[in-house]
Amino acid sequence: MTKKLPVYLSKNNGDLWLTEDEREDLKVNYRIKEIVFEGYSDFQHVMILNSYCFGNMLVLDGAVQTTAIDGYIYNEIIAHVPLSIHPDPQRVLIIGGGDCGVAKEVCKYNGVKLIDLVEIDQKVVEVCQKYLPEVSGNLSDSRVRFIYEDGVNFVRNKSLKYDLIIVDSSDPVGPAQVLFEKSFYQSLYNLLRNNGLMVCQSQSPIFHSEIMKQTFNRIKDIFPKTKMFTTIVPTYPGGLWSFTIGSKQYINPDPTKVRQIDTYYVNEQIIKHIFSLPKFMCKQIKVSHSNK
Amino acid sequence: MTKKLPVYLSKNNGDLWLTEDEREDLKVNYRIKEIVFEGYSDFQHVMILNSYCFGNMLVLDGAVQTTAIDGYIYNEIIAHVPLSIHPDPQRVLIIGGGDCGVAKEVCKYNGVKLIDLVEIDQKVVEVCQKYLPEVSGNLSDSRVRFIYEDGVNFVRNKSLKYDLIIVDSSDPVGPAQVLFEKSFYQSLYNLLRNNGLMVCQSQSPIFHSEIMKQTFNRIKDIFPKTKMFTTIVPTYPGGLWSFTIGSKQYINPDPTKVRQIDTYYVNEQIIKHIFSLPKFMCKQIKVSHSNK
Repeated sequence: MTKKLPVYLSKNNGDLWLTEDEREDLKVNYRIKEIVFEGYSDFQHVMILNSYCFGNMLVLDGAVQTTAIDGYIYNEIIAHVPLSIHPDPQRVLIIGGGDCGVAKEVCKYNGVKLIDLVEIDQKVVEVCQKYLPEVSGNLSDSRVRFIYEDGVNFVRNKSLKYDLIIVDSSDPVGPAQVLFEKSFYQSLYNLLRNNGLMVCQSQSPIFHSEIMKQTFNRIKDIFPKTKMFTTIVPTYPGGLWSFTIGSKQYINPDPTKVRQIDTYYVNEQIIKHIFSLPKFMCKQIKVSHSNK
Repeated sequence: MTKKLPVYLSKNNGDLWLTEDEREDLKVNYRIKEIVFEGYSDFQHVMILNSYCFGNMLVLDGAVQTTAIDGYIYNEIIAHVPLSIHPDPQRVLIIGGGDCGVAKEVCKYNGVKLIDLVEIDQKVVEVCQKYLPEVSGNLSDSRVRFIYEDGVNFVRNKSLKYDLIIVDSSDPVGPAQVLFEKSFYQSLYNLLRNNGLMVCQSQSPIFHSEIMKQTFNRIKDIFPKTKMFTTIVPTYPGGLWSFTIGSKQYINPDPTKVRQIDTYYVNEQIIKHIFSLPKFMCKQIKVSHSNK
């Protein structure tokens, strides 16, 4: 008797394939060497798949979240951009980020004293630490506190203030939808120190331009300073991905801050020019050149 | 009796899908509204497919080349970067580029007097002018001379010198393979005026890093000045795409040159920071920060 395959997986001529429905009209198929882990957590279907193209991949409800081969790009960008803007970030809050990749990047700054990682799904943290060390770094830094709780509840009831909040959420469907609400960004504002800042992923400028614009405008309505930046994420639809910063005070990065940091993607040049947006994005979010 | 579908197309629950084998281990499926054109030229299988995600797409031998929705990014980048570097480009040669998108961008510069477009496959030009106006712009500028000839032969036998040569080739398999040979770059060098420059697409830094490095090094061996830059191409594997410039004299762009040009992606900020490469690419091509 053979075990039934999860709905996202299929066999073709003896090969195993993951089919990811990026959109209704666009599907991506990854050839899979091996199902490393598969099971249901309390929140979602969780897989670690060993793929030919991207090595081990975290797949939640059939959607590729991060991979051994390209995960560093997203994680470095969402962490090092705000960390190069705040002159002395000591207390950092990560909402989501169960793959531990963002926490790994934040740990590279000696000045950071505390990292609260609030992830709803403990199973994601467990499997990424076990099977995805390229992303999670086998994180065992004593500054990281793992808090398994709903991010929205956490930020509502918390009194400790942070210098930096990083929202490393999945797409705005299902449980992550509330992480794109204006009331959530207001809670983040309340939870930040007087010179603190927040950053979140704000979806694809090509495929989700309405969500991107909405996210930017909601954050802009609350924070005195707001900027957008992009990077490429090879395993996300369209490749180009946007991020939005809301800040109470600081907004200009100090590229020299990443000079001594061990990275694979980010360097001083990338940080220096991070706010250069293509013309169509300037129009989308109604800013003039350079996102000012 | 129903007509047999081309091998790249299949029906699934009444829907038509194009399956693109990006790599052996990675396939992308586009849902198709309609086969707009389909047939064989003397050189390849040519299709124009109307897709839900990307509008009309040019598909050669099953591989998506350019689309109505995202074609402008590639075409603007490969044209406006070198055109902002050369102070007075008058004679421009385009090798490949049968979709006419690069020629459309070059035509935006009044100082350009002549554009020789050397495309091996006349059928590609015809179908793109007819069915892909978003890319080709229904090009009817009298400065453009269409020359239906093999690019390698053309550059070997030509005596007219150019200020700028743009190599808009497909991937280095089949007919385009010779466009990645060192002898071809040497022919381009010989065909350029004393202050001329060339640019070519040099594949994905993530999936084709060996070809990318080889291309960069071959051009570097011939030209006094060589630089690499990137952009995102949503319909190419990995999203991130590299381009290499070989120049006899000028290498620094003047971003103000694009200020008055009608574009959708390129602006002054993008040109100003075009040579900022991620750290892993600096290592790949062995340059220090900022590709110098």
